[in-house]
Amino acid sequence: MHYPQHLLKLIESLKKLPGVGSKSAERFAFELLKWPHEQIQSMATIIQETPNKLKTCSECGCLKGEEACNFCTSIRYEPKKLCILASPKDAYAIEGTREFKGYYHVLGGVISPLEGIGPESLHLDTLLARIQKLEIEEIVIAIDSTVEGDATALYLKKYLTDLPIPITRLAFGIPMGSSIDFVDGGTLARAFSGRFSF
Amino acid sequence: MHYPQHLLKLIESLKKLPGVGSKSAERFAFELLKWPHEQIQSMATIIQETPNKLKTCSECGCLKGEEACNFCTSIRYEPKKLCILASPKDAYAIEGTREFKGYYHVLGGVISPLEGIGPESLHLDTLLARIQKLEIEEIVIAIDSTVEGDATALYLKKYLTDLPIPITRLAFGIPMGSSIDFVDGGTLARAFSGRFSF
Repeated sequence: MHYPQHLLKLIESLKKLPGVGSKSAERFAFELLKWPHEQIQSMATIIQETPNKLKTCSECGCLKGEEACNFCTSIRYEPKKLCILASPKDAYAIEGTREFKGYYHVLGGVISPLEGIGPESLHLDTLLARIQKLEIEEIVIAIDSTVEGDATALYLKKYLTDLPIPITRLAFGIPMGSSIDFVDGGTLARAFSGRFSF
Repeated sequence: MHYPQHLLKLIESLKKLPGVGSKSAERFAFELLKWPHEQIQSMATIIQETPNKLKTCSECGCLKGEEACNFCTSIRYEPKKLCILASPKDAYAIEGTREFKGYYHVLGGVISPLEGIGPESLHLDTLLARIQKLEIEEIVIAIDSTVEGDATALYLKKYLTDLPIPITRLAFGIPMGSSIDFVDGGTLARAFSGRFSF
């Protein structure tokens, strides 16, 4: 006995969410079936409106609602600093630390030849134009330490090498509160090579 | 810095899926933002159409698409047997075992005073009418072994006690392939009391 056609479509659709496999998607679908119709309609409407109501700022690449970009228009106490990110989500995490008070620039991805994402997809010309327009004096690259992230950071450093601006990357090492024997070898190796005097 | 209004709405909506907390809902939402617009529209449409395209059969309570109920109209090799279930999903699991070839009857829930679900919510009068109409000769109750499930099974047995029909419940015990020292105490106790000669 097979599931009805529409149930299969619903499961297939929910399976596209990250980390959701067949079992979870089935669970979601059967739960949806128990919801009141208004709740289902409301979810459908919210999902449907998403492309219109959430956009990326054409200036910095951060997320913005229907009003102006919060990151571009709010007061920046260190307006000569620029933090380069891979994804818009990271801006909220960094803003939450209150460690950085400059502008953000979201690349929208990392260089990944396997996925067909080359340096040209990252629109580095607009990054360069923005650095000059904002008269940036320090650049912090806040990109994950993956193979693709490291390649992107190196490419950026080379691309921006002619600018008389210091370029740094976030430190990699042991997470706060973690103990050495729980940390993986790669992280421990980076923590060693990045050791500091205190 | 807060998320844009619509992003918060999207996250709240996705959090209503079972087992999805704030972190997963955020991950789903940011993933959605990367999708092509058609894919977002397609998901919204599929969710929106769900109440119209998936209904429960008015006869047996199983799920059906826009055509007739598969469970009611397909050939049943043991048409005098009835399997009583709590949720429509269980019918597919039991049908998959090929152990049961009779009709199904979905209650749509279990008795749960805490959630305000009393016996009257289970429409037992329609169950009784169906048993008589189909001239059922054996009833199998396939309901989870939880406090509510056990209460529901006992209530059903009492409710149907005047019928001259054998009523059984699925066996509870050690799952196939599992080893005794991994099984919880409750299951082991039920396996003991249900021990059989072979």
